[in-house]
Amino acid sequence: MPTLQQYIAELREFISIPSVSADPLMKGSVRQCAAWLATQLKNAGLKRVKAFETQLHPIVYADYFVDASLPTILFYGHYDVQPAEPLTDWLSEPFNPVIKGNYIVGRGASDDKSQLLVHVKAIEELILKNGAPPVNIKCLFEGEEEIGSPNLKALITANKQLLACDATVISDTNMAAANQPAITYSLRGSLNLELTLHGQEKELHSGKYGGTVYNPIQALSEIISQFHQQDNRVAIPGFYDGIKQPGKAEKAYMAAYGPNNKAMVAAAGTACQWGEAGYTAYERATIRPSLSVTSVSAGYQGEGAKNSIPNAATAKINIRLVPGQQPARLETLTRSFINYLTPPGFRVSIKASSPAMPVVLPTGNCFLKAAALAYEAAFGVNPIFLRSGGTIPVVNMFKEILSAPTVLMGFALPADNMHGPNEQFYLPNFIKGIQTSIQFMNNVSSLTKYK
Amino acid sequence: MPTLQQYIAELREFISIPSVSADPLMKGSVRQCAAWLATQLKNAGLKRVKAFETQLHPIVYADYFVDASLPTILFYGHYDVQPAEPLTDWLSEPFNPVIKGNYIVGRGASDDKSQLLVHVKAIEELILKNGAPPVNIKCLFEGEEEIGSPNLKALITANKQLLACDATVISDTNMAAANQPAITYSLRGSLNLELTLHGQEKELHSGKYGGTVYNPIQALSEIISQFHQQDNRVAIPGFYDGIKQPGKAEKAYMAAYGPNNKAMVAAAGTACQWGEAGYTAYERATIRPSLSVTSVSAGYQGEGAKNSIPNAATAKINIRLVPGQQPARLETLTRSFINYLTPPGFRVSIKASSPAMPVVLPTGNCFLKAAALAYEAAFGVNPIFLRSGGTIPVVNMFKEILSAPTVLMGFALPADNMHGPNEQFYLPNFIKGIQTSIQFMNNVSSLTKYK
Repeated sequence: MPTLQQYIAELREFISIPSVSADPLMKGSVRQCAAWLATQLKNAGLKRVKAFETQLHPIVYADYFVDASLPTILFYGHYDVQPAEPLTDWLSEPFNPVIKGNYIVGRGASDDKSQLLVHVKAIEELILKNGAPPVNIKCLFEGEEEIGSPNLKALITANKQLLACDATVISDTNMAAANQPAITYSLRGSLNLELTLHGQEKELHSGKYGGTVYNPIQALSEIISQFHQQDNRVAIPGFYDGIKQPGKAEKAYMAAYGPNNKAMVAAAGTACQWGEAGYTAYERATIRPSLSVTSVSAGYQGEGAKNSIPNAATAKINIRLVPGQQPARLETLTRSFINYLTPPGFRVSIKASSPAMPVVLPTGNCFLKAAALAYEAAFGVNPIFLRSGGTIPVVNMFKEILSAPTVLMGFALPADNMHGPNEQFYLPNFIKGIQTSIQFMNNVSSLTKYK
Repeated sequence: MPTLQQYIAELREFISIPSVSADPLMKGSVRQCAAWLATQLKNAGLKRVKAFETQLHPIVYADYFVDASLPTILFYGHYDVQPAEPLTDWLSEPFNPVIKGNYIVGRGASDDKSQLLVHVKAIEELILKNGAPPVNIKCLFEGEEEIGSPNLKALITANKQLLACDATVISDTNMAAANQPAITYSLRGSLNLELTLHGQEKELHSGKYGGTVYNPIQALSEIISQFHQQDNRVAIPGFYDGIKQPGKAEKAYMAAYGPNNKAMVAAAGTACQWGEAGYTAYERATIRPSLSVTSVSAGYQGEGAKNSIPNAATAKINIRLVPGQQPARLETLTRSFINYLTPPGFRVSIKASSPAMPVVLPTGNCFLKAAALAYEAAFGVNPIFLRSGGTIPVVNMFKEILSAPTVLMGFALPADNMHGPNEQFYLPNFIKGIQTSIQFMNNVSSLTKYK
């Protein structure tokens, strides 16, 4: 069997490829990462490996068909990563991963490269040991998850037969703590909007014109400052309409097993709590929707100052939505509200992207049971069930198109800082993750009678 | 005599050197530009040419002493330019100047390279024609005007004897129109502030934390939205205290000869008027102070989106001040106001730079008369007197340290778009500017009896 050192060497190779899907300049690196992954899958012993071309980044597919009487498990993961900026906040180079104590540090370390590779290595170990995996295996690894999986739905729809399976497994979520594994059973949906406010025709000298023009930065700030009410609720009319909330029993389970406010504040590194009144931090992050301005940009971005009034200002917005909300409806409501807030003399342009539906998964099927037993075998503890505030667009596609249940088998830790600087992954979980995945496949193999 | 074609070739060389003083990466280019200018001065026939080193960019000095009985004129200009960003707004490359009809287009075309070179060429023509200039000449061309001339005051103070003169001439201002020359007699002061709002420890995943943290972009937007009151007055307590306003006669002259609201709106390219109630646009831009946010920056600045909540947000502010206001006092007031507006849980850091005093020049001395006659000879029209909203820090230094009057002899046009994209200079004014400068020196030579 390969050693941890060999795994770490491969993980470093994987993380060192800057597969930033959002950045057009990184397109070649994303493709290179897909090729690297295809080679890994071939070396793992998978029978058929292919890359589907899309309008943007390739989707890597692999399978190993053993026997029609065995259940088929489809592993999904994404090999693309978020941008690493701002680079100055990193203590090491984001695409030159380093080992610090028990952690590997680099962009994509936990989201999603280590978690994806866990299953490739589990499959590799099973084939190496037994000559074949204990279940039929399919792998679907995409390169566009961080930009909302724009080409995935069409591919899954067009290849429904090829991707048919009994269950899907995704490792792109957190455990509750290093000694407390967790199965995630709900995800928020997502929607991105980019708004640009266009003011006067051209950039103007701030001496010659300062005090005589309505500055687009001022107007944009006024708009952003009205996105939330005094009570921290989103101010967009109709934003909260139709939301379906969990029942009392589930809220009690969340309060008992989910992170408390103190833990959430500590994980966020904030000085104090903030959010919608009447909800815990864990509830705000999972069962309530949110609107975050993720970027603002206007005027000179270099060092030093440029004394001029820009003619435009841009903000990027990320909305997270919960059951009962639809991305298309929220787009309409948000567009209307921004238009309403835009002062006379300005023109606003709004681009929407990356719509994804929220999802709540059932928690009682045999595959979840197999996963729970596998976690217990590897970690010595029963997993708890968690809601996540994040979004994995494919989960809803698997549910709708493949009618297959999904097991969200997370191995990341809350402090891994996904999407942020110094993203890390706890290496002991890489080994325990492989053990969990192996045990899961073995459990599923013996659970076929429950199909 | 050299032809217009030769002048244009030299002007293109000058503009093609990207002497952006604000950008540390351009330091070598700024130095190269100083060297180019020193060579020009030598070639023009000036007797002594030297570059003073400063803590940042060199100051180029040159002189030609003719006779102690003649008056001494000191020409000041700046060879540094504003950053060219955003580059996408340029129709041609900012540092590859092109000729479009009667204009030369490029960063620094009007501010201040063409206007500076006008006097070098005037001196060159006079020396070529007569063997010597009609007055004693001193030139002082700096490379840090666009960053507030941080090293100039110390140099002028230390070289008071060397720089002693009867009058200073600066061409870094506008005419009223192509057929209406103007002498500027007042400038606003300036002060830059850069404020960074620090929120939670680190950048956070906008899915996992959206709705649970007070976003620094939201907090910064709330602060910026409170910089102005509903009536468009700056909201900083004490901001307007002590302002000295011009008397009725001058306000009547301004109304009669200055640009009207329609002309100001047209030049700014705005859809409608904006500003402090009770003042014309020309008054708002010249005799009233202003606060403009010139830049905001937070979160991912690349193409596409990065779904995270940044841990900090930055704004750059440019204040323009008028007689009765002091940069140091405005800095204190603005710092206090920003601190007052900063919500709990945030830390704010503020850097101040480029303080410059406002200045009002007398309009009745013999040098202004010589300039007015020179304009009339070159353009066929008497110049009008204008106030400018811009800032030239050296004017106040010349007044205080050298006790020398300054003639602000502008050749730029209001539509030249100084500091903005596609900055241009009207080439017929290059020739008329040289004629004006030659005539001015000849006039001053014959006006010695009035000294």
